[in-house]
Amino acid sequence: MKKTIGILGGMGPLATADLFQKIIALTAAGSDNEHIRVYIDSNASIPDRTAAILGGGPDPLPAMRDSLRKLEACGADCIIMPCNTAHYFLPRLQGLTDIPFLSMLEAAAVACRAKFPGGTAAVLATRGTLASGLYQAALEGESVPYLLPEEGERDALMEVIYGGVKAGAPPERYRAAFLSVLEGMAGRGAGYFILGCTELPLAFRLLGLTRPSVDPTEELARAAIRFCGYPLKG
Amino acid sequence: MKKTIGILGGMGPLATADLFQKIIALTAAGSDNEHIRVYIDSNASIPDRTAAILGGGPDPLPAMRDSLRKLEACGADCIIMPCNTAHYFLPRLQGLTDIPFLSMLEAAAVACRAKFPGGTAAVLATRGTLASGLYQAALEGESVPYLLPEEGERDALMEVIYGGVKAGAPPERYRAAFLSVLEGMAGRGAGYFILGCTELPLAFRLLGLTRPSVDPTEELARAAIRFCGYPLKG
Repeated sequence: MKKTIGILGGMGPLATADLFQKIIALTAAGSDNEHIRVYIDSNASIPDRTAAILGGGPDPLPAMRDSLRKLEACGADCIIMPCNTAHYFLPRLQGLTDIPFLSMLEAAAVACRAKFPGGTAAVLATRGTLASGLYQAALEGESVPYLLPEEGERDALMEVIYGGVKAGAPPERYRAAFLSVLEGMAGRGAGYFILGCTELPLAFRLLGLTRPSVDPTEELARAAIRFCGYPLKG
Repeated sequence: MKKTIGILGGMGPLATADLFQKIIALTAAGSDNEHIRVYIDSNASIPDRTAAILGGGPDPLPAMRDSLRKLEACGADCIIMPCNTAHYFLPRLQGLTDIPFLSMLEAAAVACRAKFPGGTAAVLATRGTLASGLYQAALEGESVPYLLPEEGERDALMEVIYGGVKAGAPPERYRAAFLSVLEGMAGRGAGYFILGCTELPLAFRLLGLTRPSVDPTEELARAAIRFCGYPLKG
C-alpha cells in the first residue's frame, strides 16, 4: 500500500499551497497516477502561533488538534506542518496520535550541514520561533554554526512576514526591510540564510532574490516524499 | 458558522495546487484567519477520466467516491473538482451526497457571456470532455457561440496536456503544438479561448501567453469563494 501525506496547514494558506506545490514538483512522476496522495486541511482558523508563544494570544492547540483529527480520518500516514513556529506545539500534537509528524526544522538542519558544511547559518524566523529556541536546538543537534537576528532585524522580519506576505502586500513594499536584514547578518559573518518562516521562501521568490539559502519548506517536501517511498526528482 | 470548501483533486495534482492557489489569491484577506478553510484530497490514484469516457479505461468513479467520503468526513460545505473531464461523473457523484458540487463548466460558461458578450469561444479541452458534450451543453445554456477543435487540433491538445503539462515536460517542447491550435481556431473565427482542461491555464502561464481567454479554474475559485460568503479581491 502506497503511503500518503497529511498537511496540517493554513498557517498561512499561501505557505500551505507552496508546500503542496513543492511536493508535486520534487516527485519524479511522469503522470498523475505516479504522484503521492496528499490530504490537506488548510485551516485558516488556527490562532497565530507567535502571539500564543510570546504570551497573550489564544491557544492554537485546539484548532490544530481538530485538523489532526480530520487528517487521521482521511488516513494520512504522516503529518507535516508548513509553519516553522507551529513546531513549538509538535510534541503535544505528537502525543495525541500514532501518526508520525515529520519535523521541518530537523529537515532544514540536516540540509544545512549537507549543503553548507562548516558555514554559518543566519536564522530568519518569527519572534515566536526564535523565542521557542527550536531552530537553535535543531542546528546544535546537527553541529551547524548559526547567527540570530538582532532586535531591529526581528522587527523587520515580522513586518516582512505579517505586513508583507501574509497581508498579500506588493513585494516592493517590503524589499528594503528584507534586504537590510540579509545585509546586516551577512556583514556579521553569515554565509547563508535559513528561510525559517514559511512566508520567507515566498518573499525570496517574489523579490527575485538568489542568495545562498536553505528553504525548510522544500526540505520538508523532500523528507515527506522519502518517507512515502516515492522517487525524488533530480 | 463560516462555510468551507472541499477539493476533490489529484486530477492532476498540479491543477489541484493551481485551484487552491487561485482561491487564496482571489479572496480579499489581510491575514491568515480571513481565508477560507479548504480541505483537499489530492487523490493521485483516480484513473484517467478521458480513457474511461472514450471506452476501455478503468472506471474512476469508485476512487472519486472514496475522496468524496473523506471530504464529507472533514465537513466540507461544497465540493469542487479541478478537472473539467471529471465533470462527466458529477451527476453520479452528486447522487451520492447532500453536499452541493459547484460546476466548473457552468462557472466558465457564465464568465464567457459576461467577459466576451457575443464573441465566439474556442473550446480547448481533452477528447474526453469534448466527447461528453459537457461544454457544448453549458455554453448553449448560456447562449454562448462556440467552435470546437478539429481532429488534428484535438491530437495536439492531448499532447500538450498529457505529454506536456502532466508529464512535467519543459514548456518549449509543446509551444509550437499549442500555438498551432490557437492560430487555427482564431483563423476559423474564435474570438477567445476557453482553457477547458485544468492543465491548459498552467500551459498558458508557463509559455507566457496572453491571448483573450476564460480560465475555468479561476472562475470555479470565484464561484466557491462566493458560495462560502467571503469577499472577492479586486
